[in-house]
Amino acid sequence: MRDPILLTPGPLTTTLATKVAMLHDRGSWDVDFNALTASVCRRLAALIDGGDEFVCVPLQGSGTFAVEAAVGTLLPREGKLLVLVNGAYGERMARLAQVMGRNLVVLDFGETQAVDPGRVAAALALDPAVTHVGIIHCETSTGILNPLEEVAHIVHAAGRRLVVDAMSSFGVLPLSARDMAFDAVVASSNKGLEGVPGMGFVLVRRETLLAAKGNAHSLSLDLHDQFTYLERTGRWRYTPPTHVVAALAAALDQFDAEGGRAGRLARYRDNCGRLRAGLERLGLAPFLPESLQAPVIVTVLAPNHPGYSFPELYDRVKGSGFILYPGKLTALETFRVGCIGAIGAAEIDAALFAIAQALAAMGVVPAGTAAPSTL
Amino acid sequence: MRDPILLTPGPLTTTLATKVAMLHDRGSWDVDFNALTASVCRRLAALIDGGDEFVCVPLQGSGTFAVEAAVGTLLPREGKLLVLVNGAYGERMARLAQVMGRNLVVLDFGETQAVDPGRVAAALALDPAVTHVGIIHCETSTGILNPLEEVAHIVHAAGRRLVVDAMSSFGVLPLSARDMAFDAVVASSNKGLEGVPGMGFVLVRRETLLAAKGNAHSLSLDLHDQFTYLERTGRWRYTPPTHVVAALAAALDQFDAEGGRAGRLARYRDNCGRLRAGLERLGLAPFLPESLQAPVIVTVLAPNHPGYSFPELYDRVKGSGFILYPGKLTALETFRVGCIGAIGAAEIDAALFAIAQALAAMGVVPAGTAAPSTL
Repeated sequence: MRDPILLTPGPLTTTLATKVAMLHDRGSWDVDFNALTASVCRRLAALIDGGDEFVCVPLQGSGTFAVEAAVGTLLPREGKLLVLVNGAYGERMARLAQVMGRNLVVLDFGETQAVDPGRVAAALALDPAVTHVGIIHCETSTGILNPLEEVAHIVHAAGRRLVVDAMSSFGVLPLSARDMAFDAVVASSNKGLEGVPGMGFVLVRRETLLAAKGNAHSLSLDLHDQFTYLERTGRWRYTPPTHVVAALAAALDQFDAEGGRAGRLARYRDNCGRLRAGLERLGLAPFLPESLQAPVIVTVLAPNHPGYSFPELYDRVKGSGFILYPGKLTALETFRVGCIGAIGAAEIDAALFAIAQALAAMGVVPAGTAAPSTL
Repeated sequence: MRDPILLTPGPLTTTLATKVAMLHDRGSWDVDFNALTASVCRRLAALIDGGDEFVCVPLQGSGTFAVEAAVGTLLPREGKLLVLVNGAYGERMARLAQVMGRNLVVLDFGETQAVDPGRVAAALALDPAVTHVGIIHCETSTGILNPLEEVAHIVHAAGRRLVVDAMSSFGVLPLSARDMAFDAVVASSNKGLEGVPGMGFVLVRRETLLAAKGNAHSLSLDLHDQFTYLERTGRWRYTPPTHVVAALAAALDQFDAEGGRAGRLARYRDNCGRLRAGLERLGLAPFLPESLQAPVIVTVLAPNHPGYSFPELYDRVKGSGFILYPGKLTALETFRVGCIGAIGAAEIDAALFAIAQALAAMGVVPAGTAAPSTL
């Protein structure tokens, strides 16, 4: 049997070429691996047009580890962080700042609205103690795209520093140091870059990072220490996930071959539009209007039908070879379908067919709904 | 060209079967992956005869992340840690406790001696504020094996808690909850278990862990939170390194097939003895007496010869297909040769031959030294 296609927002389906890059063991102190690390870092920094002003600090662990490292390292101990929350990932950024004992204020937009730049401006005007602002570019809980560029301009105009969690948007949506001001962008190997999970990275203004010595609450998550060691020796500070790094390098080759960010975005947009349209034909209402929808993950309202249950839908669709994602909203029953990864129109169509078959088997849509409408 | 053999203490050379397990993408929330995680955790806990008293908490990142998580989670904020230091890894444990702002005292044995249980007993008697003791089972800086069982008895008798960094000894040297008292053992995927790097794990007394809520200085490194989420949902709290976990499961299959810990230890002992003897035949003096030598990594004194340079030795031996490891001692010039990983007598003999050829080319040993003595 073939492996199931992951319609999840990372880990996601990667190409065989990406996985095959892991069929080699590499010495973590050897010059060849150092060169691989340097090349990956250079390529990641170039993706935000970082020039000489930004450096890339890779970090072992999941994306959350990198977000915590960025906040813990860049926020001075006496600083204050304003977190813009409209879903689980914003909440997580606030929680990690709280656990590390930093001064924190949260601006909550609810889980159904994008961040409102006007409210951010007002909050900054009201609280001069805030030194840093944290935002989630694309809130994967719902798929909401937040207005990063507008918020960046407001934060910059107010003389504060911005930390961007760009986990699921990085390499896909526009995010350039030429167009907006930020101190750090955090992402990971296993989202739009289509690598495998096991490392995050922070693209951070060199000057800011070098001034951040001694801020961190944690040795493992100290980006300043990680960076200065890497710059001095060419090596990761502690054992790197060598196979994961190699897979990311291979994934970046394929990213370039697809036409870089523009090519990746075009495919994901096509996946997302095709998915939304197909789900709507099945009577499933997307949770978000198209204007707020990032081409990453589509949240769908659960059908209001006695025959529907998500576990059954999940199992049936899995039986057809596709892994769905559960919902993450507190007030509404939803499920999610990712549209990122090494998948295209063929996989989206086949997934829609599988969902239609499953809903038909559950009596939620009439038998035979699937074939004519999705093909 | 074949990949070089890694004579390094992890990442190390793994089998193709272990790496091939990474040729699949797995949904991190899917029941199949949950089952894989549960099975790996069960098998790891069984390796210390943990019974129902110990649980396994896997953690994203390198081994150091897991050590920091164990110390940060298990040591109460008002607790005090005594770290037994005789090399870089002991120093690192002290440093991470210091960065997180905990009460700390260090007992330093120098880098050429094993931990002295008598001095540990005296230190505990002198300082009643010490609540926890941290020890490195095998100090990879030198290859020194510390007297864990004796220290564990002393710590237990003194009514204190023990945290063991067993990074390079786990699955190789005896370490059983039946024979000695400890609260936590920390190790990683990519040492004696012969998986790939990208995750650590902590085997911790369930009762201790459940009482440790709120101790941690970090959200990402909070073992209590990681464990309670895993126990409630079956899932890792944040994105797991799915491919690394799959590789570890495959590596554990091979571990079992080799006869478990006893089989693994026998092969490493043979590797180590063969390596030490071969190096001595080349006139290279092992840094440690056999009584202190763990079968993990052999530290060798650099030849006192004007033709010798480690960079040249490294490059020449790499040209023959073997990656050596630099020394890590402050006072003496050394280099290191690991004897763990998916290697046996054939690889050790070939590595010795390559080292002999390199030393001969550098004029350190007479030409022709290699062939007769190592074959």
